[in-house]
Amino acid sequence: MISYDNLEDCSRGTYDRQSDSEEPPGGGRVFSGIQPTGVPHLGNYLGALENWVALQSQYPSVLYSIVDLHSITQPQDPAQLRSNILDMAASLLACGIDPKRAILFQQSQVSEHAELSWILGCLTSMPRLRHLPQWKIVGAVITMKSKQKNEGSVGLYTYPVLQAADILLYKSTHVPVGEDQVQHLELAQDLARIFNNRYGDLFPEPGALLSSTRKVKSLRDPSAKMSKSDPHVMATISITDSPDDIALKIRRAVTDFTSEVTFDPEKRPGVSNLVTIHAAVAKIGAEEAVSQARGLDTGAYKKLVTEAVIQRLTPIREEIERLRSDRAHLEAVLTRGTLRARELAAPVLNEVRRRVGFC
Amino acid sequence: MISYDNLEDCSRGTYDRQSDSEEPPGGGRVFSGIQPTGVPHLGNYLGALENWVALQSQYPSVLYSIVDLHSITQPQDPAQLRSNILDMAASLLACGIDPKRAILFQQSQVSEHAELSWILGCLTSMPRLRHLPQWKIVGAVITMKSKQKNEGSVGLYTYPVLQAADILLYKSTHVPVGEDQVQHLELAQDLARIFNNRYGDLFPEPGALLSSTRKVKSLRDPSAKMSKSDPHVMATISITDSPDDIALKIRRAVTDFTSEVTFDPEKRPGVSNLVTIHAAVAKIGAEEAVSQARGLDTGAYKKLVTEAVIQRLTPIREEIERLRSDRAHLEAVLTRGTLRARELAAPVLNEVRRRVGFC
Repeated sequence: MISYDNLEDCSRGTYDRQSDSEEPPGGGRVFSGIQPTGVPHLGNYLGALENWVALQSQYPSVLYSIVDLHSITQPQDPAQLRSNILDMAASLLACGIDPKRAILFQQSQVSEHAELSWILGCLTSMPRLRHLPQWKIVGAVITMKSKQKNEGSVGLYTYPVLQAADILLYKSTHVPVGEDQVQHLELAQDLARIFNNRYGDLFPEPGALLSSTRKVKSLRDPSAKMSKSDPHVMATISITDSPDDIALKIRRAVTDFTSEVTFDPEKRPGVSNLVTIHAAVAKIGAEEAVSQARGLDTGAYKKLVTEAVIQRLTPIREEIERLRSDRAHLEAVLTRGTLRARELAAPVLNEVRRRVGFC
Repeated sequence: MISYDNLEDCSRGTYDRQSDSEEPPGGGRVFSGIQPTGVPHLGNYLGALENWVALQSQYPSVLYSIVDLHSITQPQDPAQLRSNILDMAASLLACGIDPKRAILFQQSQVSEHAELSWILGCLTSMPRLRHLPQWKIVGAVITMKSKQKNEGSVGLYTYPVLQAADILLYKSTHVPVGEDQVQHLELAQDLARIFNNRYGDLFPEPGALLSSTRKVKSLRDPSAKMSKSDPHVMATISITDSPDDIALKIRRAVTDFTSEVTFDPEKRPGVSNLVTIHAAVAKIGAEEAVSQARGLDTGAYKKLVTEAVIQRLTPIREEIERLRSDRAHLEAVLTRGTLRARELAAPVLNEVRRRVGFC
């Protein structure tokens, strides 16, 4: 229920409060976002999402956002984007994100993200932004796609500011990040300090939760990360791949000419990647995985890894299929998450607006 | 009255519709914005605001926004900004903006501006923005303030995109602009085309209403525009200046050593500026003003100009004083304007979001 009675006092909408509070509870608040790329791959699942699931029972307040505003910094087909948002929601639920414990929501449905991003952009100097990795990505895009004259959009250049807004809007205290995102989190920390110095303490400085260093590599080129955009269809296992597809991809995985299984990511990246995957899906250590491989050549070990992956992914795949067939349920989950996210975001943005002098 | 029942269908808030429609009526829709600099000066009034007042009776739908989101692209004192917003609202009303005929509202109260700006920023290439004048302004700031290491904020760099969002959000068809803003309007036109090409026709291409070329100059340096930020206190007449202050400033106005009054802005910029002011406040042509000055030396003519300025500004000053003493009324006017602006903006942004694929 929304009321616009008290516009003058900076609040453009008051919400019936449920249990959520805009102040992070003792123990902190976790925020993270994921782009709506559709169904995640095994690298996303083992590298980040498993950790997201665990954080739900480690922190009293957890928000996970499907960051569709970020996704349009690259061209998107609208129908595909819509479908990818719902597929990502289904995948997150199937992987174990529990809407009773985490607020799962779609970024573009909470207008406060874009609003805070504008305000923070006015506190961010252009030189500060120029040194961040997204610019290097732009550089890479220029290099890679110069024939297409794609020189990067304003959105691509400024998205670290939106990312800072995503985090600060909920007064988040902990942000799970990969190593490649540490510099972006530093911008959020800087902007919290800059805002607090200029307008008085409001934002906690969010700390990094470095996610496990577990990095799943491409099955075709173990020097590269597993990636959805890999042109080689055999390089990446989707979490909805059928058992046959999983078996085929692992059978074709690049290894080397030594038949024994050892874990040595530097010298033997291919077979070590299989050990990493095996250990992760079986929830054992790399040493234990190698010991289970004793006496097996890499061909036989691939079958063992295949079985372990299939065993882990089958219930997830089945749950995604079930959820995909119930679009109304998915949309209802996102809507509830959106309302809860707004309950947290609205009072924080109202306070920002009051301090900036808008009201 | 707001309802969030139908979140899934892209509408995050439905509004009781009044007479306003998101489609511009036949005859078009005018949009313009003004930064909350407090009380305008005589140059603002004669150069732009008088025209704004006239447009109210020339177009069936007119929106004027106090663009506080733009104002924070430069550092602002929050209490001063809040007071400047209300002073600007009082000044606009006193100058003749009629809330029954124009929607007068505060930009930051309508979240759709920042949201559309983000989406349009994803359609704007960095090189496109680099050639716009705001960057040259940044350049000037660098030159002028390099000792302060002020190198321009992201907000200052990207504000033409927000300006485009301001205009397109209301499907505006006509935008009164000064010559220095034509390139910014071209960005709005480009973005309307780019969006329409990619997502199907939605936005009309807004056309420029070039405001009168009447330019009021500084009273101390007639080669420069009259400006609020002029360090010389005698250079600028505020529309709330007392009759004594007006008389003093015009008496001290720079002219030349010829006592006769002629209109020749190139060779005699000082006295010609007085003729411009006289003609504008008395609503006569420059020739008529010069003819009224026949037989007077510049000293005597200054008294005539002073009288004309005082006569024109006195009722405005008195009305501003009255309105300033009724803050609740001013806030109520802005609140009503905000609600009407949102009624227009919300369905347009919902349609944008649907086409982009967010819902």
